[in-house]
Amino acid sequence: MEFTSAPSIVVWNEGVHEARNEPATIGEMYPQGIHGAIAASLAGYFPGSEVSTATLADPGHGLTEERLARTDVLLWWGHIAHAEVADEVVDRVHHHVLGGMGLVVLHSGHFSKILTRLLGTTCSLKWRNDGERELVWTVKPSHPIAAGVESPIIIPEQEMYGELFDIPEPDDLIFISSFEGGEVFRSGVTFSRGRGRIFYFSPGDQEYPVYHHPQIQRVLANGVDWVAQPARDRSMPRVENPARDWFSG
Amino acid sequence: MEFTSAPSIVVWNEGVHEARNEPATIGEMYPQGIHGAIAASLAGYFPGSEVSTATLADPGHGLTEERLARTDVLLWWGHIAHAEVADEVVDRVHHHVLGGMGLVVLHSGHFSKILTRLLGTTCSLKWRNDGERELVWTVKPSHPIAAGVESPIIIPEQEMYGELFDIPEPDDLIFISSFEGGEVFRSGVTFSRGRGRIFYFSPGDQEYPVYHHPQIQRVLANGVDWVAQPARDRSMPRVENPARDWFSG
Amino acid sequence: MEFTSAPSIVVWNEGVHEARNEPATIGEMYPQGIHGAIAASLAGYFPGSEVSTATLADPGHGLTEERLARTDVLLWWGHIAHAEVADEVVDRVHHHVLGGMGLVVLHSGHFSKILTRLLGTTCSLKWRNDGERELVWTVKPSHPIAAGVESPIIIPEQEMYGELFDIPEPDDLIFISSFEGGEVFRSGVTFSRGRGRIFYFSPGDQEYPVYHHPQIQRVLANGVDWVAQPARDRSMPRVENPARDWFSG
Amino acid sequence: MEFTSAPSIVVWNEGVHEARNEPATIGEMYPQGIHGAIAASLAGYFPGSEVSTATLADPGHGLTEERLARTDVLLWWGHIAHAEVADEVVDRVHHHVLGGMGLVVLHSGHFSKILTRLLGTTCSLKWRNDGERELVWTVKPSHPIAAGVESPIIIPEQEMYGELFDIPEPDDLIFISSFEGGEVFRSGVTFSRGRGRIFYFSPGDQEYPVYHHPQIQRVLANGVDWVAQPARDRSMPRVENPARDWFSG
Repeated sequence: MEFTSAPSIVVWNEGVHEARNEPATIGEMYPQGIHGAIAASLAGYFPGSEVSTATLADPGHGLTEERLARTDVLLWWGHIAHAEVADEVVDRVHHHVLGGMGLVVLHSGHFSKILTRLLGTTCSLKWRNDGERELVWTVKPSHPIAAGVESPIIIPEQEMYGELFDIPEPDDLIFISSFEGGEVFRSGVTFSRGRGRIFYFSPGDQEYPVYHHPQIQRVLANGVDWVAQPARDRSMPRVENPARDWFSG
Repeated sequence: MEFTSAPSIVVWNEGVHEARNEPATIGEMYPQGIHGAIAASLAGYFPGSEVSTATLADPGHGLTEERLARTDVLLWWGHIAHAEVADEVVDRVHHHVLGGMGLVVLHSGHFSKILTRLLGTTCSLKWRNDGERELVWTVKPSHPIAAGVESPIIIPEQEMYGELFDIPEPDDLIFISSFEGGEVFRSGVTFSRGRGRIFYFSPGDQEYPVYHHPQIQRVLANGVDWVAQPARDRSMPRVENPARDWFSG
Repeated sequence: MEFTSAPSIVVWNEGVHEARNEPATIGEMYPQGIHGAIAASLAGYFPGSEVSTATLADPGHGLTEERLARTDVLLWWGHIAHAEVADEVVDRVHHHVLGGMGLVVLHSGHFSKILTRLLGTTCSLKWRNDGERELVWTVKPSHPIAAGVESPIIIPEQEMYGELFDIPEPDDLIFISSFEGGEVFRSGVTFSRGRGRIFYFSPGDQEYPVYHHPQIQRVLANGVDWVAQPARDRSMPRVENPARDWFSG
Repeated sequence: MEFTSAPSIVVWNEGVHEARNEPATIGEMYPQGIHGAIAASLAGYFPGSEVSTATLADPGHGLTEERLARTDVLLWWGHIAHAEVADEVVDRVHHHVLGGMGLVVLHSGHFSKILTRLLGTTCSLKWRNDGERELVWTVKPSHPIAAGVESPIIIPEQEMYGELFDIPEPDDLIFISSFEGGEVFRSGVTFSRGRGRIFYFSPGDQEYPVYHHPQIQRVLANGVDWVAQPARDRSMPRVENPARDWFSG
């Protein structure tokens, strides 16, 4: 299944697990890094798109004003280096999301500076790394992000993420996961902030090959398509002081 | 814990399982019927309230216009006799909910005429009666219905209710349950319709002593308190054709 | 602006104003009927689509099972003949919406049998036919239905529709209108029911040439594109009783 | 009408207009300051409550950790001195809101550091100070904040606040205002963040006697009652790493 839309896509990954080779299996699982695996999958879904990657180690973390200005969708994976992301880069990304750039935040990115700034809450949660089976159930089948997705998606081994997930009430609750230990998690949720759209999706980790799962790849592609607004002029909402009847010309 | 509010409460139960003594354990588990057990618990929480019961076998199912007019909160339990509820009674209840009467729908009441009419969807779901452990997790801790409630509530044996639960997007999603088989369910949700408030809560069954669980009783009491609007005049929203500037007159 | 999607579209109009030539201006304003004007506009936006019309006077109101089964989006305009729509047709449309057919309800269609059944409320409102200026303001600019739409849309003369509009809390509130007399109205709202998507849009009337307004035409086209789910198999949510671990099998 | 609840209330005002006597009418309109007028009104509604005030000029802006810890509801009025509010005070307030302290943000407080941090958006809007009539319409009559409130509230002269109001989709949309110039505004909205509840209400200004309006006073009292959760332990959501089956232990 391929999309006819062609949003410009950047997959950002802190890339620290890969650089340190921690866990030792990461190089085998993701030879091009987590970002490389995600980008390769998206390139297949969006044959007309430019799909590129960026990491923490790149100058300006690879997220210069020029690059963001021509990006329709930014995906974000981070885990152990959230604090190392420069505030001025977070400012830029925040500005572009409010202006209409789509944002897809993945897994441990729940604690990223950009997501906590956009949402205003702690984004804390329960977790346990015990290789549990995760089942991802669709609860909003009319949403495009659920199109063509099996319910449940079965992920044989995963880190558990559990409620209470401290987020604002999402615009759309699309997926709820359960884990062998009995916990549940709102694993696929959307938000609108300013003129931009945000999709958070929790499955995915540095220890499990989740981003190779065809159903997970489909969800990410659906998410990219849904948050993308290529035609938008990227102007941020701003205060205005109009005269009476300004609109009647 | 007692509430200072004193809403007028009616607990409605079709009462057919009790009348047929099916399952055979129901008389031991609920000697006064499911409705009797719930009413007794609520009477403890609302010492100032009139708490009464009504069943399908009562004239007009016990839900006359006069009685509904002085009822602040109606609880609804039904299972095998939904089709026997008279449409004119459903009309009356519908009218009163839109006018401001609170409604708490329980467990298999998801398929009741009154809930499907209010929600407009099939309210279908997955189910399996296999005595599974249900865990009820709080996901909106700021909601009064979650006040004083443990997360998770542990119900040792329960019928499984699973997604897809075909309901409209609720106003508030307060509880999500998981079951041993891995299914999840939006087990505590609220809706507003007209001037009225609705709370649906899924735990509870004719085969398991769920309504004796102190935490479940607390949720029901919180739900009753939340849907109740005793001071409301019970006028239904209606079409109006005002003159220009009627309000400044 | 043209859409690349090609949903199959049916524009339904009761067609009674046109048949009676009431108001006397309707024939001049809408020589092909309100449905004809809307269909012509949509045909321009969706060059790949089959766009057809149907009316109350057609056999089965033009909404047979066969036709609905191959329809991706149904638009609904009705006013003075809601009661004449056969319940079995409403049943069919209801069934198809829950299965995934998109529905766009227009103006006085707020009181149609299909919308009140889907929403469960009275859908009552305030109204006044006094030729007032309506301003339609965008409040959710990230929504595709707002794409390319001016804020405000200025409609020089319109019937006033005002709050309280007795609907459930919508999934998305996209437009709010104001009128010269000071009333406000949630004029563009979405709902999801079952697997289907619904868009209600209030501007439009038999006395004013609102459906010739280019901005209104753009909103309707956006709405059609948003509710359409052409690839859906149109299966309605239904009760299921799975075995434990059916999904791992 | 008096409330039986007795939340501990602090009314915060930057107090700069009052100190500078700008506008020159402010001393006559609000001899005890805007905060004093609001506190006096609330004291009448909550006879059992401690109601106090705090301003920017107080040490720590009057919002020490000790005081916040015993506050159930904080009201916030600010306009020209948002930037002078110390970040560490904003940190403290943010922390307490996420832990369960209620927050009511008023009028030009839309641009306060605390609200923009909680919401993650610019909170920008349109405005015009032209003494226009504001009408405040109730659109969610089942919400306690609308109880006993006339629809519309008529405010003879007001500053215009108009859409686009750049906020996240609110949990509840209770009031929509219109202005003589034709603009509309979501003037009464709620949000939940962490364990806390937030109510934003736009009517109110330093140039108009809006806080003396009996209906506005009623809305503020309703808002205080709704955001208050006196029994809460004020613990902020935090990350947890539980063992499997910790809950059954």
